Amino acid sequence: MSRTADEDPTPGAASQTPGDPATADETPRGISRRGLLGLFGAGAAGVAVGGGAGAAIASSAAASSGVDSTRVYPFAGEHQAGIVTPAQDRLHFAAFDMASGATRDDLISLLQDWSAAAARMTRGAEIGDTGAVGGSEFAPPEDTGEALDLPAAGLTITIGFGPTLFTDASGIDRFGIASAKPAELEPLPRFAGDALEPGATGGDLCIQACADDPQVAVHAVRNLSRIAFGRASLRWSQLGFGRTSSTSTSQVTARNLFGFKDGTANLKAEETQAIDDGVWVQAGDGSAWLTGGSYLVVRRVRMIIETWDRSQLGEQERVIGRSKGAGAPLSGGTEFTPIDLAATGAAGQPLIDKGAHVRLAHPDVNGGIRLLRRGYNYVDGNDQLGRLNAGLFFMSYQRSPQQFITVQKNLARDNLNEYIKHVGSALFAIPPGASEGGWVGETLFA
Amino acid sequence: MSRTADEDPTPGAASQTPGDPATADETPRGISRRGLLGLFGAGAAGVAVGGGAGAAIASSAAASSGVDSTRVYPFAGEHQAGIVTPAQDRLHFAAFDMASGATRDDLISLLQDWSAAAARMTRGAEIGDTGAVGGSEFAPPEDTGEALDLPAAGLTITIGFGPTLFTDASGIDRFGIASAKPAELEPLPRFAGDALEPGATGGDLCIQACADDPQVAVHAVRNLSRIAFGRASLRWSQLGFGRTSSTSTSQVTARNLFGFKDGTANLKAEETQAIDDGVWVQAGDGSAWLTGGSYLVVRRVRMIIETWDRSQLGEQERVIGRSKGAGAPLSGGTEFTPIDLAATGAAGQPLIDKGAHVRLAHPDVNGGIRLLRRGYNYVDGNDQLGRLNAGLFFMSYQRSPQQFITVQKNLARDNLNEYIKHVGSALFAIPPGASEGGWVGETLFA
Repeated sequence: MSRTADEDPTPGAASQTPGDPATADETPRGISRRGLLGLFGAGAAGVAVGGGAGAAIASSAAASSGVDSTRVYPFAGEHQAGIVTPAQDRLHFAAFDMASGATRDDLISLLQDWSAAAARMTRGAEIGDTGAVGGSEFAPPEDTGEALDLPAAGLTITIGFGPTLFTDASGIDRFGIASAKPAELEPLPRFAGDALEPGATGGDLCIQACADDPQVAVHAVRNLSRIAFGRASLRWSQLGFGRTSSTSTSQVTARNLFGFKDGTANLKAEETQAIDDGVWVQAGDGSAWLTGGSYLVVRRVRMIIETWDRSQLGEQERVIGRSKGAGAPLSGGTEFTPIDLAATGAAGQPLIDKGAHVRLAHPDVNGGIRLLRRGYNYVDGNDQLGRLNAGLFFMSYQRSPQQFITVQKNLARDNLNEYIKHVGSALFAIPPGASEGGWVGETLFA
Repeated sequence: MSRTADEDPTPGAASQTPGDPATADETPRGISRRGLLGLFGAGAAGVAVGGGAGAAIASSAAASSGVDSTRVYPFAGEHQAGIVTPAQDRLHFAAFDMASGATRDDLISLLQDWSAAAARMTRGAEIGDTGAVGGSEFAPPEDTGEALDLPAAGLTITIGFGPTLFTDASGIDRFGIASAKPAELEPLPRFAGDALEPGATGGDLCIQACADDPQVAVHAVRNLSRIAFGRASLRWSQLGFGRTSSTSTSQVTARNLFGFKDGTANLKAEETQAIDDGVWVQAGDGSAWLTGGSYLVVRRVRMIIETWDRSQLGEQERVIGRSKGAGAPLSGGTEFTPIDLAATGAAGQPLIDKGAHVRLAHPDVNGGIRLLRRGYNYVDGNDQLGRLNAGLFFMSYQRSPQQFITVQKNLARDNLNEYIKHVGSALFAIPPGASEGGWVGETLFA
């Protein structure tokens, strides 16, 4: 076999790679192949292509994963990563159902295997002892390999438990955990205008993989899905290509597919007290095993963009309650000026329309409730009428599902409803983070 | 209205933006709003968020579009951009059908409108005189706005004509161009193993939008689709998230979803003679209007990745004919070592299997034929069995469709066929580039 080329990286090339090599390399099971390739691969290729092209090659390699592609977020911690982590640019989300006949031990071993794999992938390491190319030629590789040359790319993997994991549709306690089911972990109520499709709704388990490089996020879901084989299988999944929510004050506000800035007033990681109050489940909230965790609501919100695109600019701004360009509230100021819901114009009319999205979602009309949103734009081809199947894959984290439910009920009067349709929905309990070497869900089974 | 915030950019912030402002701003119809926002938007937001965060914000803004997000490729030129242009990382491809009853004038005006819009978007400018936020509040904006703050991101827009544009399924010459139909522009023959779906096959027209930022590519297809309203509508479309082919020696070889390096032996833009011989239609090839153009083959190749993932490493490498790690041919050497089809092992067996993909696609067994490949990885959710709907969106440019047909026929014996399924297919004639201020297709209607 001619795999010797893999095993002779050029040490000198390491200086081309920013970041801390030690972070990516210190795996509990030894130096990973992907770690080596990640550090040296681009440089080695540069030598092969010819001298002088090194800089261009490094830049081209980085282009597939964005500026901060060498960022590494630890998998273990008090809370799972991927919640208050500054929202990465790309998403692959997957909902799973446990296999028919799967046992409690299957579930526990799956969570252990997922956690071990996630800890490795989020470091930029390959899965398993031998990865994609280090094993026997007579065995399937442990890692599928499409992320071999790519850095960690800020990957986070966040694992959640749906209501049906605790009691299935027939009320059966398949895994002996029904008694630990949080009282609030119930399927979301039906909201006005819901047009939910079974193929985008529910799930026993979920994986949220976020990264700066879509190939890294896809690699994560694919390999976790592969690991689940025989124990759980994909129920539905969604790729998101552009984050729409800032979760940190260090981030620019991005635009959704209506062309408006989204997430300006989002909860930000830097607001630590508000995050404690609004995102993390606290001791005494009910289920002790969930302390330090959260609840995740996901909603696939199809946008009727052809209708939107034919509406007047003034109508679009009235619907949202902000200017389209700067994202400033129509009550005046600039993007980050607080919204003045009481402001009126010369004729006494409210500057923020009674049905404006920013009014109905505002904490002042929702008992002070704020959510940590983490949404992504999506486009999934088009329908048979030639309309893009596009919209917002809404995700929000909150201490209690009641926060989302309260706001969503209020949005029944939202001007936006003429232009959107909720076609997918799910709720998951998000356990606290794994301890170093531990696994997500350990507190539930302890 | 409170849109004044849009109109007061902070000039000092321009220094944070790399690239040449003049390139993006010199639009024939005056300074574009998007140009202004692109130059000043991030800086203005930085001021609002607070001092000191400028660098992080700039980096975060750039992260959504990769390192080279300020690259600009001109729309006009001898050849259309997006063919030998170094393959960008993201794709949105769309096939359109002309509307029932559309006239020759409709087709001409559509191509003119598309070209004008494409020339603006590829510069990073908004569509139209007033863009997304500069028009009347009583009119729909000319641009949908979701790319308002984003740079050109290396966007290229490539326009093509399918066989049915010249003569439809009933043999009717709807647009008075049947006599100009190139003899070679006929639907591809059926290949062994084809399992084509109508929803991913054919089309009167196509748009290939490639960019370093998916939001920029999606914005382009969406707005071109909107411009087509009443004249043409989307037939099918495809997002690709990771390029699999290098089209320039300055690019690192990327990996497909089988985990292998793809495109190592691809035609590269730097091989100018080979590009002339193999990609550009030459004077005397048949249809004079197509001189300087090309033919584009697109194939949606579903990968049966669950089966692949369970195959042995040795089997995977035998199927491909290269090592998985370094991508070196199994006949020896490193990635860019020429493949030795005659090499044998100690027992006399061929080192490159008789059915290896690299053997059957090799120029030596295809009369010297080479294609310029420009493929992308895709993942479109999953099927009802929980298998990822994933694969390769293959695209190749060639001087004659016969080049692709010859190679594809040879691939009937490809080991890979056990793991892939061709589910979509289309062929397009790609006109030469537009002259400055001209439009794509002008040579056909002259």
